[in-house]
Amino acid sequence: MKTHKIAVIAGDGIGKEVMPEGLRALEAASKRFGIGLEFETFEWASCDYYAQHGKMMPDDWKAQLAGCEAIFFGAVGWPDIVPDHVSLWGSLLKFRREFDQYVNLRPVRLMPGVPCPLAGKKPGDIDFYVVRENTEGEYSAVGGRMFEGTDRELVLQEAIFTRHGTDRILKYAFELAQRRPKKHLTAATKSNGIAISMPYWDERVAAMGESYPEVRWDKYHVDILAARFVLSPERFDVVVASNLFGDILSDLGPACAGTIGIAPSANLNPERSFPSLFEPVHGSAPDIYGKNIANPIAMIWSGAMMLEFLGYTEAHDAVMAAVEHCLVNGPRTPDMGGSANTTEVGVAISERI
Amino acid sequence: MKTHKIAVIAGDGIGKEVMPEGLRALEAASKRFGIGLEFETFEWASCDYYAQHGKMMPDDWKAQLAGCEAIFFGAVGWPDIVPDHVSLWGSLLKFRREFDQYVNLRPVRLMPGVPCPLAGKKPGDIDFYVVRENTEGEYSAVGGRMFEGTDRELVLQEAIFTRHGTDRILKYAFELAQRRPKKHLTAATKSNGIAISMPYWDERVAAMGESYPEVRWDKYHVDILAARFVLSPERFDVVVASNLFGDILSDLGPACAGTIGIAPSANLNPERSFPSLFEPVHGSAPDIYGKNIANPIAMIWSGAMMLEFLGYTEAHDAVMAAVEHCLVNGPRTPDMGGSANTTEVGVAISERI
Ligand SMILES: CC(C)[C@H](C(=O)O)[C@@H](O)C(=O)O
Ligand SMILES: CC(C)[C@H](C(=O)O)[C@@H](O)C(=O)O
Repeated sequence: MKTHKIAVIAGDGIGKEVMPEGLRALEAASKRFGIGLEFETFEWASCDYYAQHGKMMPDDWKAQLAGCEAIFFGAVGWPDIVPDHVSLWGSLLKFRREFDQYVNLRPVRLMPGVPCPLAGKKPGDIDFYVVRENTEGEYSAVGGRMFEGTDRELVLQEAIFTRHGTDRILKYAFELAQRRPKKHLTAATKSNGIAISMPYWDERVAAMGESYPEVRWDKYHVDILAARFVLSPERFDVVVASNLFGDILSDLGPACAGTIGIAPSANLNPERSFPSLFEPVHGSAPDIYGKNIANPIAMIWSGAMMLEFLGYTEAHDAVMAAVEHCLVNGPRTPDMGGSANTTEVGVAISERI
Repeated sequence: MKTHKIAVIAGDGIGKEVMPEGLRALEAASKRFGIGLEFETFEWASCDYYAQHGKMMPDDWKAQLAGCEAIFFGAVGWPDIVPDHVSLWGSLLKFRREFDQYVNLRPVRLMPGVPCPLAGKKPGDIDFYVVRENTEGEYSAVGGRMFEGTDRELVLQEAIFTRHGTDRILKYAFELAQRRPKKHLTAATKSNGIAISMPYWDERVAAMGESYPEVRWDKYHVDILAARFVLSPERFDVVVASNLFGDILSDLGPACAGTIGIAPSANLNPERSFPSLFEPVHGSAPDIYGKNIANPIAMIWSGAMMLEFLGYTEAHDAVMAAVEHCLVNGPRTPDMGGSANTTEVGVAISERI
């Protein structure tokens, strides 16, 4: 039996509460399907670690993660101790960049049993992927201030789009679209307002589209695209977007599908030269931490995505079947209108797996 | 009787169809309330003009608009003739910048008679303003390409935030919040990912907040903020945002409130050193142009905002009462489930005024 080494990083806040349930589900799947998973837990990449060491991670973090195929990640951020941009750039965003996890893949799916905030939608009506560029674009610490502290103060913020970075995410998205029954791709742009980078993005989309004649593709400016997520989510299949637009659309999409409390994500290095990272879309949620009421489903679903990435489609499907059963029949955490706690939901799902 | 000179620019596509109805409503209000309005129509700032002259506007456009207090604007853009970034930067975005219309004010309101895509919401539940910075930030043509046409191709896109530009929009938003019963302001940010400009924005928000102790304010990252527009729109009162985030949120907001087909906007130079501009949020809609089925309500509502800006609150209220009556009782254009045409809806509203 092949053994996959998985790094476990719970991070901050409810990351620490949902992680045990994610692991419980993975162990259940591993037992049932005979999958060799070896977990190694790391206490860093958390604000607690920062409080003790003045940095988010040890200097040899890369060496410590060597040999891991994947990172199973909870959530990071505790603004009372560390400002968000410090904690995130020192951990999650570092993983994404330095491990070249250039695909952020986020399913948007209206699940059975989940009340939808959009009127009249039923499961099956909303079922698409947001494919987000995850290493460059608008997320940048390049730029600076001038005339600091005076009335003339001025800030320059650079966004950086490379052909390398743009083409590979578009390629991933077109290939995903080609594998799906609808073979439809939508590119998010804003070339009517952002005059250098977005016309470039549009050009590369058009160029890539030529290599995928079977894929029907269109593009929308991100403002109207956001509106269409609300007004006609059924029209989407694969939505590809820059780092920032993908960030916005992949929170908005799950909100339209009921709740970001259950939404998973995969930060992929498709070439497998580095570990990929699997994490809930939700954050560390300081406001509900400590009560053991966080919904563990996003963590468990992220685990299912990890199993699929490792090649275990059947195990993925079994976890998702258990998740769906739980969404329909309970138990439910308070955010879903129930009164079960994190552990109860996690145990119920794992038992079903 | 004081006379206000108003420039009328219909622009492209359905801009040309809804403009007559906007004017009809303004004339009705002007007659009823004895308001002196003098309209001057300009055929430029349209793609037709571009087709003939190779530019969107004549060189002396500023001189031609001298003496106008406001511009009543339809929509611009006809991508088959002129790429969007050319037509927009050559007209609308030029007005916003060169006339220093630094406030883009966009009401988000669930109106009676409008079916809401969000389940279980009724009029009154959604009623807030998006205050968008309208001259700088992410909308920029500063930047460039390197290694063009090679695998190393690279694009730099600059966003520019000045203290002058940031503080004045925040001030406008805090003052608006202070005048409203809830006195609540939400700032959109993304300082956890965009590492130079957004932490600066946050700093300025906090500094401005100190001058408005009565205003309760909070801030959200734009990704989760977009999600909350869908999940809990009733919590918002005044939302202040940078140019790009304001653009996205002010399309998303109206979508949550039913339709962007009726949403108005005001591009304000609050100091009145230059004309302000009033326009629908919707665009030129090439797909439905020529059928006379576009909904004229966004244009008419924009006219109401113009009347308010000119100091005629009663006239504004009368136009809005007529709009509400029409939304509840019809006639309705096809986008609202009716079968009336643009003119019929416009005439019905004007008669009621
Ligand atoms: C047409 C476009 C340039 C414009 C913008 O992005 O500002 C529009 O979307 C708007 O919101 O007024
Ligand atoms: C926490 C934050 C930096 C992050 C992002 O913006 O990428 C998060 O919102 C996400 O979507 O994973």
